Amino acid sequence: MTVKDVFVSAPGKAILHGEHAVVHGKVALAVSLNLRTYLRLKGTTTGNVCINLPNIDTFLCYDLSELKQLIPVSCGKREEGKPLDAELVRKLREFIGVTNGNLDNCNMATLSFLYIYISLFGSSELPSLTVSVWSELPTGAGLGSSAAYSVCLASALLCASGAIPAPLKESDQSARWCQEDLEQINSWAFQGEMIIHGNPSGVDNAVGTWGGMLRFLAGKIIPLSRVPLLRILLTNTKVPRSTKFPSIMTPVLDSVDAISCTCEKILSEMTCEPITGEHYNILEELIDINQHHLNVMGVGHPSLDTLCQVTLTKGLHSKLTGAGGGGCGITLLRPETDSSVVQTTVQDLKDCGFDCWETSIGGPGVQQHSPLSVKEEVLEILNRY
Amino acid sequence: MTVKDVFVSAPGKAILHGEHAVVHGKVALAVSLNLRTYLRLKGTTTGNVCINLPNIDTFLCYDLSELKQLIPVSCGKREEGKPLDAELVRKLREFIGVTNGNLDNCNMATLSFLYIYISLFGSSELPSLTVSVWSELPTGAGLGSSAAYSVCLASALLCASGAIPAPLKESDQSARWCQEDLEQINSWAFQGEMIIHGNPSGVDNAVGTWGGMLRFLAGKIIPLSRVPLLRILLTNTKVPRSTKFPSIMTPVLDSVDAISCTCEKILSEMTCEPITGEHYNILEELIDINQHHLNVMGVGHPSLDTLCQVTLTKGLHSKLTGAGGGGCGITLLRPETDSSVVQTTVQDLKDCGFDCWETSIGGPGVQQHSPLSVKEEVLEILNRY
Repeated sequence: MTVKDVFVSAPGKAILHGEHAVVHGKVALAVSLNLRTYLRLKGTTTGNVCINLPNIDTFLCYDLSELKQLIPVSCGKREEGKPLDAELVRKLREFIGVTNGNLDNCNMATLSFLYIYISLFGSSELPSLTVSVWSELPTGAGLGSSAAYSVCLASALLCASGAIPAPLKESDQSARWCQEDLEQINSWAFQGEMIIHGNPSGVDNAVGTWGGMLRFLAGKIIPLSRVPLLRILLTNTKVPRSTKFPSIMTPVLDSVDAISCTCEKILSEMTCEPITGEHYNILEELIDINQHHLNVMGVGHPSLDTLCQVTLTKGLHSKLTGAGGGGCGITLLRPETDSSVVQTTVQDLKDCGFDCWETSIGGPGVQQHSPLSVKEEVLEILNRY
Repeated sequence: MTVKDVFVSAPGKAILHGEHAVVHGKVALAVSLNLRTYLRLKGTTTGNVCINLPNIDTFLCYDLSELKQLIPVSCGKREEGKPLDAELVRKLREFIGVTNGNLDNCNMATLSFLYIYISLFGSSELPSLTVSVWSELPTGAGLGSSAAYSVCLASALLCASGAIPAPLKESDQSARWCQEDLEQINSWAFQGEMIIHGNPSGVDNAVGTWGGMLRFLAGKIIPLSRVPLLRILLTNTKVPRSTKFPSIMTPVLDSVDAISCTCEKILSEMTCEPITGEHYNILEELIDINQHHLNVMGVGHPSLDTLCQVTLTKGLHSKLTGAGGGGCGITLLRPETDSSVVQTTVQDLKDCGFDCWETSIGGPGVQQHSPLSVKEEVLEILNRY
């Protein structure tokens, strides 16, 4: 059996509002970050399963006869949303020589791949194939790179196994799956995340799957139907206070909660009425207020202050995103922000020693692509393997 | 009748925490600012009443016979805490030629002086005297300069009229009045403030009278028995967002309220336990948090951000005080802050175009002084008149 080729991509994730407050039972808004992970799956006849992860210098091939030994006795197609198959995990860890002290990105990515591959194909015939992945996302920066990888793996392998159809029609550049298929993708991506992270919240794989924006509250994840695409700069500054004084901190968390809810309302308005400058003014104001609150929570950092100041001199508003204490920040670009302003801002931030990407938030989740429609640079990298 | 000479001073006021939040029913802490207004009253035999206010270039003399015409028919010693005597105010405004369009500092200060003078002496004989005032406080900067003036006027004129005793013993450098006398001073100072401001809150004259720290909540003013003297820099940057989004702003005001209460608790601890570095750490943290909140309320200003950054490079923490949107900021100095650090910080702030004073908060309220104990530079100015 030779499986069909599949080309997919999934977005990263940024927290728009509510980081830190979410652990205190407040709303957080997670948005898709249009820095994407691309995965190409090719059916082969080599009798090997190969995985190429050039971002982390990982290039591995396994003989199908070796992998067959790992299929659990009980293996049938596993139901979604179930805990990991402990026997398969144990066998795989032994197979690739993962000990507790050896949980690097390379091992985790391999484990996650083989787990989903064997789980989906173990009950029939293991197919010969090669998976190559390239990501625009920095790893370990809290931007959901592992989830984007797991979502790509899940969608491509589910598609190759025939569990879900390939949505791409001949004339399409890219296509999305129906809601039911996305749920299956998300569920398998969550299994991959469990292998990589142990106890993931499920937010990252949900954003990678559905894209757009998700409302996250007390462990419940609610995808929001429609949100506008917002241009942003994402800056990695490359560099936390305790919540003492509950009487001072508790109301700040309430205010952050209200910021998330107000932001959600504004973004929803922007999808059903004409977008105005006032919408952007409010989004900017919410960013400023939340950045002050995050400073109050003690998760600011001088490098993030620098980010805010540098961008404000260009009339652009920034806040930290994610864990803070250094790390990444997002800067909202307005529709009318001129590309020359964007370019000088990016240069100023690079001059501060930061990495900086012009991208967008609120874009689509996992997609299948026609290889012809994928950016030249991504294709070029993936075609090397 | 020749009245005895009296030399008094009263402090200015700074808001330590709770500015803006106070108008939303939250606690504010007002502290005495040890930039003081000095008043010397000299009994004369010239048959004139003279007032010298070199800060605002005001030097006026009135003939006693003219002033006698202004005494209201009903004039007896007016009770404290009563509304202004509308007839006297009207006569005085006519006398000094104040029209509604002419309410400058000079007219207001004169009106306030003559009102208290005639009210206190009108029922007996108007004495010949000269009042000279010099203030270390900038005017119109929200630092209670008019209240310090009114408190000085009230205490000196009450003392000269014999309504309250002069507390200074021969061997003293300075002395304070008893609680009952302070209440009388405060009450007359409030009348002076009503002339100058129309509808004053009463906080400024209370701080000028009692010194230390006052808790101000929903119009009620509670002097706090004991507070430590804290060294500060006061900076005048010399340069407001509406409170929209109630769901976001209301909790911020609650947090400011909790900051004021926490600060009050810490300051009270500092007067009854050994003062530690941790006390100062908390005071600094409260300053930082409140400054972020004031930014959220939209009363920050780039010049205040500059103040915070410049002082933070020296390890010192600052916040705006009072109205914000420019205006004044205070910087807490620690007991161990070296004078060389203070001097370079002051210089750095002056280099930003700001005025800057090294002073303290929490010092005494209105005092009588032996002229020998008053700073040379103040004496020298007052002796010119």
